[in-house]
Amino acid sequence: MQTQDVIRKKRDGAALSSEEIAFFVRGVVSGEWADYQTSALLMAILLSGMTEAETHTLTDEMLHSGEVLDFSDIQEAKVDKHSTGGVGDKTSLIIAPLAAACGVCVPMISGRGLGHTGGTLDKLEAIPGYRVQLSLSEFRSVLKRVGFAMTGQTKEIAPADRKLYALRDATATVEALPLIVASIMSKKLAAGLDALVIDVKTGSGAFMADEASAKKLARALVKTGNAFGVRTEALITDMNQPLGMAIGNALEVRECLEILRGEMKDGARPVHDLSIELTARMVWLAKAAASLEAARVKVQQALDSGAALDRFRLNIEAQGGDARVCDEPARLADLTLREVHVESARTGFVAGIDAAEIGRAVANIGGGRTRVEDSVDPAVGFLVNAKIGDQLSSSARTLGVLYCRTKAQSEEASARIIAAYRIADEPAASTHALIKEVIDE
Amino acid sequence: MQTQDVIRKKRDGAALSSEEIAFFVRGVVSGEWADYQTSALLMAILLSGMTEAETHTLTDEMLHSGEVLDFSDIQEAKVDKHSTGGVGDKTSLIIAPLAAACGVCVPMISGRGLGHTGGTLDKLEAIPGYRVQLSLSEFRSVLKRVGFAMTGQTKEIAPADRKLYALRDATATVEALPLIVASIMSKKLAAGLDALVIDVKTGSGAFMADEASAKKLARALVKTGNAFGVRTEALITDMNQPLGMAIGNALEVRECLEILRGEMKDGARPVHDLSIELTARMVWLAKAAASLEAARVKVQQALDSGAALDRFRLNIEAQGGDARVCDEPARLADLTLREVHVESARTGFVAGIDAAEIGRAVANIGGGRTRVEDSVDPAVGFLVNAKIGDQLSSSARTLGVLYCRTKAQSEEASARIIAAYRIADEPAASTHALIKEVIDE
Repeated sequence: MQTQDVIRKKRDGAALSSEEIAFFVRGVVSGEWADYQTSALLMAILLSGMTEAETHTLTDEMLHSGEVLDFSDIQEAKVDKHSTGGVGDKTSLIIAPLAAACGVCVPMISGRGLGHTGGTLDKLEAIPGYRVQLSLSEFRSVLKRVGFAMTGQTKEIAPADRKLYALRDATATVEALPLIVASIMSKKLAAGLDALVIDVKTGSGAFMADEASAKKLARALVKTGNAFGVRTEALITDMNQPLGMAIGNALEVRECLEILRGEMKDGARPVHDLSIELTARMVWLAKAAASLEAARVKVQQALDSGAALDRFRLNIEAQGGDARVCDEPARLADLTLREVHVESARTGFVAGIDAAEIGRAVANIGGGRTRVEDSVDPAVGFLVNAKIGDQLSSSARTLGVLYCRTKAQSEEASARIIAAYRIADEPAASTHALIKEVIDE
Repeated sequence: MQTQDVIRKKRDGAALSSEEIAFFVRGVVSGEWADYQTSALLMAILLSGMTEAETHTLTDEMLHSGEVLDFSDIQEAKVDKHSTGGVGDKTSLIIAPLAAACGVCVPMISGRGLGHTGGTLDKLEAIPGYRVQLSLSEFRSVLKRVGFAMTGQTKEIAPADRKLYALRDATATVEALPLIVASIMSKKLAAGLDALVIDVKTGSGAFMADEASAKKLARALVKTGNAFGVRTEALITDMNQPLGMAIGNALEVRECLEILRGEMKDGARPVHDLSIELTARMVWLAKAAASLEAARVKVQQALDSGAALDRFRLNIEAQGGDARVCDEPARLADLTLREVHVESARTGFVAGIDAAEIGRAVANIGGGRTRVEDSVDPAVGFLVNAKIGDQLSSSARTLGVLYCRTKAQSEEASARIIAAYRIADEPAASTHALIKEVIDE
């Protein structure tokens, strides 16, 4: 089989055979395919697409390019949640302990933030001492003991994906649907799951800004999961504004702890609601409740009783972190930081927010990464005050509070945040529903 | 400017600005663009296309990535011919001396054969001692002395093209029209031409098998040439069967010398006719004749008088070759070779020939290259006897004569050549016109 022939075939719009896809993925890992040949095929896939069958084969080959975890010795159903990424999206930190408290097992393999989006690993590292790079045996041990464990992708899992992802990032081929599906699903399937709930974000802070693309992606993910015997559901959820109030790693952990402690601020309500719904669907798909409605009740109880907070405390201890943050979330704050109130230049009603731009403004002052190799400052961030529909008057026009280190940072980030708000004279006719649609087949 | 943004823009079908194209070509040469980024853009160009303006800018940037020759001290008009490549296409060896004999200057920069097609440099090297890698000063000196000179692409000329071509070959992006145009034209324009005639082949032995694609390419080449102030014309010519009789380097040089000596065999008539027409158009575009008809007469006279043969003799001497081949073409034959008559398995009429397959069969026994790094055996080849429309009877069914080194070679090549012929019971309704169309704007 010739590399060029496989590229040519996809370039000309034909479907690749299973053998050709296997030749490709194995060649990427072995180095038989040169990077410049791989990237040419990636671009051809982006522009010519892949059939469902091709996407499944690609996922399967990427999955089997590395180790597939086997948790069959754990009796509880294994279930996970995956989000396509957004701004202020910190639900994993609530969902994992909450689901574990409901009797399911959550082997969560997460990523780091890049560009406008945050990453669960960065958020966890805002907890002093917390270790996010567990060995596979540590991961298994925490999972058994606590019911959930959080770690980064290891080099044993789906190595083809790591190589392909780096190339996609450098060659503007990230957005190819079959590549997104295979990348997400190969890693999730490697964790040996029984069920999976996917949170597909849509709106100004999402990778898929338009809802039609988000639904298409959701359907492809669900089909692939189910094809591999993993009960999979996707929710299309709103990302037209940051989720909750906190953006920035320590601020986001604090918001989660406040929710787990029953001390939630009003602005954090969407984080609570989305976490409950996603967890309920995980519990239901894992068959740990008789109905979706029963799952919702069970999940709410696990939150209200403090059982979820207890699980998080156990997990932090097991993963080397300072569990005192659970009882004193304020410990996460860095008192040396500047707190700057960002004020709207004009009055009126918030008509729209460029959430990605706010994410980039926070990333730019150290709250996230503009490049993979950047390090992150856990303390900096932005607490959103004004959301879509809110009125800004001359006496109350604070968009939010910026936490940063220097005057230059505060000036640049404030200007970007102000520019990211669209203010209108009249209130908007409708606001965005948090959960737009459930895709279950 | 970000590499990914440029790739993304072309991927999404937009036209690149002049600055973006310059950033790309300069980045390819400097190494700022990684090969895997370059190949992703090449694939995006293949699938999304380029406007005329983009193609001209790409050509211009590739042209100026290296040295542009200046022959303004030579009084005669500078004119060249380029062929898109075929099987048995040896017209350059006739055209260059013929045009020089008509008083125009031909600075010909040629290539090597690859795959089913031959290359002018390989053919010239069948002449003992002939040097095809001249320095620029040698090239200039031969050109002034003889009126034409033949050399390979130097590293000074269009270095961006060399790098891009190697990547295109490895990534199935050779066929992108704007890339073909920019590759051909950047090299031709670097030779400082006043006029250019392009022979765009179409048919079973051409890169562009279908005539519509060939015409599209021809129009793009002509437009680009004219946009750069080079009077450019293209002929769409037939490549549904090998051109003339000879395939293989020494055999092809011998066929050319026979034509230049007025000792042409009947089967070589198309080589003669096409050479006369292409040269006449060069002479006419170079304004060395009052009309195209006058140019045709002038060219035929230069052939018939032996003036063209004299020029070739001078050139061979100037480039270090053994000029005795001009007087004794048989010197090119290697008497140690096997001569194998290839016989059709059945009788009937030749209805079609897979010319590319015959080219590959000859390349495979050493007559050409399957990979760039292969060396070539100048002596082996195939002399075609049966052309489209010819009748094969039980007493006369020789397809041609194969010249090779081993029994295994003769068996494999014979089988491939026999299989490349399509024989029908009835004669075909029509044969292919040698010159199908002239594209002059």
